[in-house]
Amino acid sequence: MRVLAFLDGTLSDPDAPWIRVDDLGLMRGDGIFETVLVADGKPRELRPHLDRLARSASMLDLPEPDDEAWQRVTRQVIDNWTGDREFALKLVYTRGIESAPDAGPTAFAMGLTIDEKILRARRDGVAVVTLDRGIDPGLAERAPWLLLGAKSLSYGVNMAAGREAARRGAGDVIFTATDGSVLEGPTSNVIIARGHTLYTPPATIGILPGTTQAAVFRGAERLGWSTRIEPLSAADLRDNDGLFLASSVRKLTRVHTLDGEQLPDSSAVHAELAKAYEDVYS
Amino acid sequence: MRVLAFLDGTLSDPDAPWIRVDDLGLMRGDGIFETVLVADGKPRELRPHLDRLARSASMLDLPEPDDEAWQRVTRQVIDNWTGDREFALKLVYTRGIESAPDAGPTAFAMGLTIDEKILRARRDGVAVVTLDRGIDPGLAERAPWLLLGAKSLSYGVNMAAGREAARRGAGDVIFTATDGSVLEGPTSNVIIARGHTLYTPPATIGILPGTTQAAVFRGAERLGWSTRIEPLSAADLRDNDGLFLASSVRKLTRVHTLDGEQLPDSSAVHAELAKAYEDVYS
Repeated sequence: MRVLAFLDGTLSDPDAPWIRVDDLGLMRGDGIFETVLVADGKPRELRPHLDRLARSASMLDLPEPDDEAWQRVTRQVIDNWTGDREFALKLVYTRGIESAPDAGPTAFAMGLTIDEKILRARRDGVAVVTLDRGIDPGLAERAPWLLLGAKSLSYGVNMAAGREAARRGAGDVIFTATDGSVLEGPTSNVIIARGHTLYTPPATIGILPGTTQAAVFRGAERLGWSTRIEPLSAADLRDNDGLFLASSVRKLTRVHTLDGEQLPDSSAVHAELAKAYEDVYS
Repeated sequence: MRVLAFLDGTLSDPDAPWIRVDDLGLMRGDGIFETVLVADGKPRELRPHLDRLARSASMLDLPEPDDEAWQRVTRQVIDNWTGDREFALKLVYTRGIESAPDAGPTAFAMGLTIDEKILRARRDGVAVVTLDRGIDPGLAERAPWLLLGAKSLSYGVNMAAGREAARRGAGDVIFTATDGSVLEGPTSNVIIARGHTLYTPPATIGILPGTTQAAVFRGAERLGWSTRIEPLSAADLRDNDGLFLASSVRKLTRVHTLDGEQLPDSSAVHAELAKAYEDVYS
């Protein structure tokens, strides 16, 4: 199921064509997006998602997003959703039409059924391969024009990484930097549990600050866990009591296999943290 | 002026919406393109462009492009063009609609008036800044999932580099690798003249093989010049008799200023090579 609404409040047929061929979002991947999880009619982490949308817009020199309009259109899609109790809400914001710059950005929200593959990984965990992302951890600060850490529509490489994982018999990817440090998944953040402490790498190394990662950390802190945002090495991916990918639609997904090697069972840790995450919203 | 035709031969209004919001070209920058220069009704370097489209498709695991259909639609746009004697012809090929994978790729050709800024740079030359691209020259071979050297629709970084150049008072960019070696422009190849020899870096370092660069080399060879495809260092950008950017719409554009420093006048060398390039088509 899909529900589409443009930012001006126009509810539209998602099966009809709405975008001109010279929209810069299409022609140049020049735009940004967010994916929000909606559960039981409530958008999760909407404030952090809208903050990150504004941050991405600033990094791409796009006009500042109209926060209230995005809140309204989010509500509108939710109110028109009649599918599963959980769904993915995409917010898309492009630089607009190349031949009509005065028309301003193209902006819409779309509700989507969550992919079966994602739901299966939530339940059963996922096999992951590490792939070299070819960047060093200092690059994001040194070269802001590379848009590292912006949630850009130019996700071709993220999609290619997923295909490479499939070729290697895995379902997802963890990118590593040239110095071996852990970055992120193509559409997720990496979380490691060790004892009663959670770890995730800092956004300053050129990754997206995770909305779901932050929610999982909040949930764990309520249980008395410690949380640390600090650089992780490739060795940390093995030396832990649980390795997870966090994203809006994945929630907290357990990694059961890394580069073909089965990891120790982290189901119990996963169950505890998954409950802690859900309890944030109850 | 714009002329739009889809790959199936449907001539279409370029001001109408044709693309669904869940086209993966829009949602993920997941697709490829080419820009062909058409002059006096003839597409320049169409064979190399279509070969490169097929190469990009292979790198992205897209279905092999229908070569004859692309040739037909190219002819169709040209036959319907009534604007300037030179125009840009874009070929765009996306992974298609996410919710309807069986529908296959989205594919169209569009004729476009060449931007005034590009025409001015052709005549007067351009100021360029060097920007760190953050990759090392071995990365493309080591990590094919990064799609280095594919002409992908995920051009967000290339567009951001152009904005960074504008902030620094320049009109274009030359990307350098982490070891200081010369890569390419965001939408062009780098050519250096030294005596009667032309130099350009090899595509194996993760850049696009240039169709116009190759044509300039052919033209220069006819005049008895030597040509070399070999790695260039940042120092080579200054130690030469002419520094140029080559692309379909730019043709051979002279760089007159590099990182704020005016370069020695290379107008005479430029004029000779620009003529050599045009003579390829006469």
